[in-house]
Amino acid sequence: MAIVLGPNQYGKAEVRVVAVDRSTPQHSLVDLNVSSALRGDFSAAHLTGDNAHVLTTDAQKNTVFAFARDGISSPEAFGLRLATHFAGSYDWISGARVELESYGWDRIAVGGAPHDHAFRRAGGEVRTAVVTADGDDLHVVAGLTDLVVLKSTGSEFWGFPRDAYTTLAETRERILATAVTARWRYVGSDLDWHATYDTVRTTMLEAFASTHSLALQQTLFAMGTAVLETVPEVAEVRLSMPNKHHFLQDLTAFGLDNPDVVYHADDRPYGLIEGTVLRDDVAPAEVAWQGTPGFV
Amino acid sequence: MAIVLGPNQYGKAEVRVVAVDRSTPQHSLVDLNVSSALRGDFSAAHLTGDNAHVLTTDAQKNTVFAFARDGISSPEAFGLRLATHFAGSYDWISGARVELESYGWDRIAVGGAPHDHAFRRAGGEVRTAVVTADGDDLHVVAGLTDLVVLKSTGSEFWGFPRDAYTTLAETRERILATAVTARWRYVGSDLDWHATYDTVRTTMLEAFASTHSLALQQTLFAMGTAVLETVPEVAEVRLSMPNKHHFLQDLTAFGLDNPDVVYHADDRPYGLIEGTVLRDDVAPAEVAWQGTPGFV
Amino acid sequence: MAIVLGPNQYGKAEVRVVAVDRSTPQHSLVDLNVSSALRGDFSAAHLTGDNAHVLTTDAQKNTVFAFARDGISSPEAFGLRLATHFAGSYDWISGARVELESYGWDRIAVGGAPHDHAFRRAGGEVRTAVVTADGDDLHVVAGLTDLVVLKSTGSEFWGFPRDAYTTLAETRERILATAVTARWRYVGSDLDWHATYDTVRTTMLEAFASTHSLALQQTLFAMGTAVLETVPEVAEVRLSMPNKHHFLQDLTAFGLDNPDVVYHADDRPYGLIEGTVLRDDVAPAEVAWQGTPGFV
Amino acid sequence: MAIVLGPNQYGKAEVRVVAVDRSTPQHSLVDLNVSSALRGDFSAAHLTGDNAHVLTTDAQKNTVFAFARDGISSPEAFGLRLATHFAGSYDWISGARVELESYGWDRIAVGGAPHDHAFRRAGGEVRTAVVTADGDDLHVVAGLTDLVVLKSTGSEFWGFPRDAYTTLAETRERILATAVTARWRYVGSDLDWHATYDTVRTTMLEAFASTHSLALQQTLFAMGTAVLETVPEVAEVRLSMPNKHHFLQDLTAFGLDNPDVVYHADDRPYGLIEGTVLRDDVAPAEVAWQGTPGFV
Repeated sequence: MAIVLGPNQYGKAEVRVVAVDRSTPQHSLVDLNVSSALRGDFSAAHLTGDNAHVLTTDAQKNTVFAFARDGISSPEAFGLRLATHFAGSYDWISGARVELESYGWDRIAVGGAPHDHAFRRAGGEVRTAVVTADGDDLHVVAGLTDLVVLKSTGSEFWGFPRDAYTTLAETRERILATAVTARWRYVGSDLDWHATYDTVRTTMLEAFASTHSLALQQTLFAMGTAVLETVPEVAEVRLSMPNKHHFLQDLTAFGLDNPDVVYHADDRPYGLIEGTVLRDDVAPAEVAWQGTPGFV
Repeated sequence: MAIVLGPNQYGKAEVRVVAVDRSTPQHSLVDLNVSSALRGDFSAAHLTGDNAHVLTTDAQKNTVFAFARDGISSPEAFGLRLATHFAGSYDWISGARVELESYGWDRIAVGGAPHDHAFRRAGGEVRTAVVTADGDDLHVVAGLTDLVVLKSTGSEFWGFPRDAYTTLAETRERILATAVTARWRYVGSDLDWHATYDTVRTTMLEAFASTHSLALQQTLFAMGTAVLETVPEVAEVRLSMPNKHHFLQDLTAFGLDNPDVVYHADDRPYGLIEGTVLRDDVAPAEVAWQGTPGFV
Repeated sequence: MAIVLGPNQYGKAEVRVVAVDRSTPQHSLVDLNVSSALRGDFSAAHLTGDNAHVLTTDAQKNTVFAFARDGISSPEAFGLRLATHFAGSYDWISGARVELESYGWDRIAVGGAPHDHAFRRAGGEVRTAVVTADGDDLHVVAGLTDLVVLKSTGSEFWGFPRDAYTTLAETRERILATAVTARWRYVGSDLDWHATYDTVRTTMLEAFASTHSLALQQTLFAMGTAVLETVPEVAEVRLSMPNKHHFLQDLTAFGLDNPDVVYHADDRPYGLIEGTVLRDDVAPAEVAWQGTPGFV
Repeated sequence: MAIVLGPNQYGKAEVRVVAVDRSTPQHSLVDLNVSSALRGDFSAAHLTGDNAHVLTTDAQKNTVFAFARDGISSPEAFGLRLATHFAGSYDWISGARVELESYGWDRIAVGGAPHDHAFRRAGGEVRTAVVTADGDDLHVVAGLTDLVVLKSTGSEFWGFPRDAYTTLAETRERILATAVTARWRYVGSDLDWHATYDTVRTTMLEAFASTHSLALQQTLFAMGTAVLETVPEVAEVRLSMPNKHHFLQDLTAFGLDNPDVVYHADDRPYGLIEGTVLRDDVAPAEVAWQGTPGFV
């Protein structure tokens, strides 16, 4: 028996780069949080502290800032450029993973007109991208997190089995609320990233709103299916959707009914529904997901 | 010398009540985080554990839910109803403070049309209200937090004194970014709360965008002044504005210039600018601010 | 009527300075988060953006680091040095507030012996200090936050009034848990800061443990009283203590009793008990508390 | 081409159960955050909203509380009981994953003696366990998170390659600080869980302290190796260690040297070093890691 080094990676996490496009008086803004990680032969650093193969995390950070000098067209394109660069920088580096969070900014309206250089952070969901270079292969997984949505009707939950620990009543009417984390893998690495992202996001929102839900699983599957039906470049969608419970408050002690009016938004515990929806004719690409938090 | 009980209060914090208005097929939603605190004679509870004066925090929570059964028109109005109720509930209770956070929800668009009962949480800033009943007096302090704004130009910083520890270079061009926390005290307790809130918020945003800034203090004062000039019912405005530094990244080591394009958004430390703007002919009302985090 | 500038302050928040004492092979460590704020005549900056009076927040940060070169004996002493320096730096500066958080580090034990230069962060509560220079006066408010404590018995709650919204059952047995935030004001500015802090902390913990509690208010008052009885240099104690509810779980649906064994630790809402305990023969010093979050 | 359901799971997350052992006057306390997830055939719920196979997340929560009635000996043992129960509850359920966080509580000392029923939350690191039932197989992955450690000397970093974006200076002396997240997989499911956990934790701390570090990778590998050498029941160790940068502050502008005394503790960006150390003669068990955030 021997004790050996297994899979490993290292990099610089959370480089907060903001790039301003001042090419016209109407500025625009890209605001990213970039994390890079390198894969390859780093055995010597682990075994003896020999850093001859260790492209420093400080250099990785510098590269992010230097590349931003040319402007950032989209998280996906910027990630592709960085991942390709890192994976090709030394022959002992076999791959790179670049994760990006993108924060939206809206123009402030002044007198009803959008201002040229004053912005308000959009808040709400965060757009994400994970680009993986694996040898000569490139993978792009786009996504979003913290998209909080709610339906005030159109959700039921009944027909479940009742074991010795089941006390929940069936319901034909409940609030359904969740905070969507979605990640979808593209086939190809030369898309119209902004337009495609917007289409996926809109499709998921519409599917959430339009699905009369008998189970959060059903809603999840409907959202993933709608994306795959609408966007041919998406190979698979992974969704993680907490069931943010809104409990109807019992007001009978105060002589009041509660016809689906007053709810308590609870924190913990919460249901957590996770699932994958995919095309059955596309080759899997597990390396594209390696290092991304998830359930599989 | 004696050891005595000084100022004290107690209550239930963070009651997460959601009220759905289903009076038409187009539902609407109010989503609040309500904290109540009672003031009065609670000496016995402190000195001997005698709870005869302690209206339980559980009952305070129940009251929030029960009152929500009638619908919630605005955070301010709901807070006034609760504060008045609590302050008048027992003769040993001399006052009540009700703090409310309000989370916005936008309708999801489906096929371009707003959905009747599907919503997306707005994200970004949180609307706040603090209502204080003090004997027969009622005070309303409205506000917002986490309104993150940025100007990509139109901000300078120079002309400051240089002591032995000053190394900062003067600049005629910098990014100005902040996360506004604003609280404003109304004169009167019978306003159009939604319309007035919207006016104050818009006024602050426009003042931020329009002020060519030589100091964040100047921007703060301009924002407060604009509110007071625009909304006669506002007696004073208190603003807390962190200077969220965006440092221009030095790229010369890589043979690159950086003509105000690439910035590093830093976390800590940050500047913190706090100030009050007020009318000089309005009586102060310190009790309206008691218990609210702030700088004075 | 005129619109005028009211109270204001500005400074640098959250300077994360770590000072290592290497004077012997057994190193020691001080790990602080320092925030400074200046008070005085800064009208011109607000009204016209004239920064002639604005000692930059960058210089304040530099001062923190430069002063740390001489070593940091305690948060209180370091705060006093900084506040005195800032308040005396220019004649238009009338006062300064320095807030410090101190993070504890324990030595890692190797083979049972404390290591000379390897440490583990203590976790749990944070030691705090707020030093205020106000003209020639100096005030020190020490404190701690996030001291989470629990009693598994020795706590009751009964005898409270029952209004129309009271449904809570009385109990002679409950878990009492809270996260103590305590701040105490010293008379004098030349104490043995470490020893006094340790005495106050120990006194509060012992009072919490030893008090058979009929109300969290009673426990709060007992803790404050014990501090004032034990440490003559403390003039007043302000305590904020959330009631972190642990609800006995009803297991009857599963054919099980629950004799005070299984609890659900709930998040929100929570009770919040806040109070002051003070000597009646000490002059108040409201400026010492100005800018510190609290309830009065 | 068809759109199909891929891997999925669902469950109840973050059940906060506290169990008090009152069998003697000296109480003891177990404080857990339990998340369960079921795997199996849940296609109908996804495709049509048929919940006949959906053991409710509410029932999963109830099971956690009901099982706690018998006492909780350790996170690992409690997780094994739950996972075995869930996986065997219906024939369409093929597996279960139970994740547990355990929060430590120390006895409060009163007059130097540990109190029978008053406790202080330990703070600092959190003990974790992930138990997976996969058919008849059981896997236990123990771990800890947020173990923050620091060495004030005994760390160097040099000998790295210099590409076009490398500006970092080599150093023979730096602060090394990290927040360890470690997870280790056991072979076998009938160990002395507390004793083994303590041994692993102590071994990692000692290895961190004792390793003269030329690279954080070297320290990581030394920690993992020491665990495997010391505890034969551990098959593999996965470590994630952010490099929490402490930058030596340049004080020359103020006429001061800085002989490794004053540091700035920075937040972002940070290095992130992740790696696995394992025995080469133990069969891998990827299912034991499925659903656990990590880098592989």
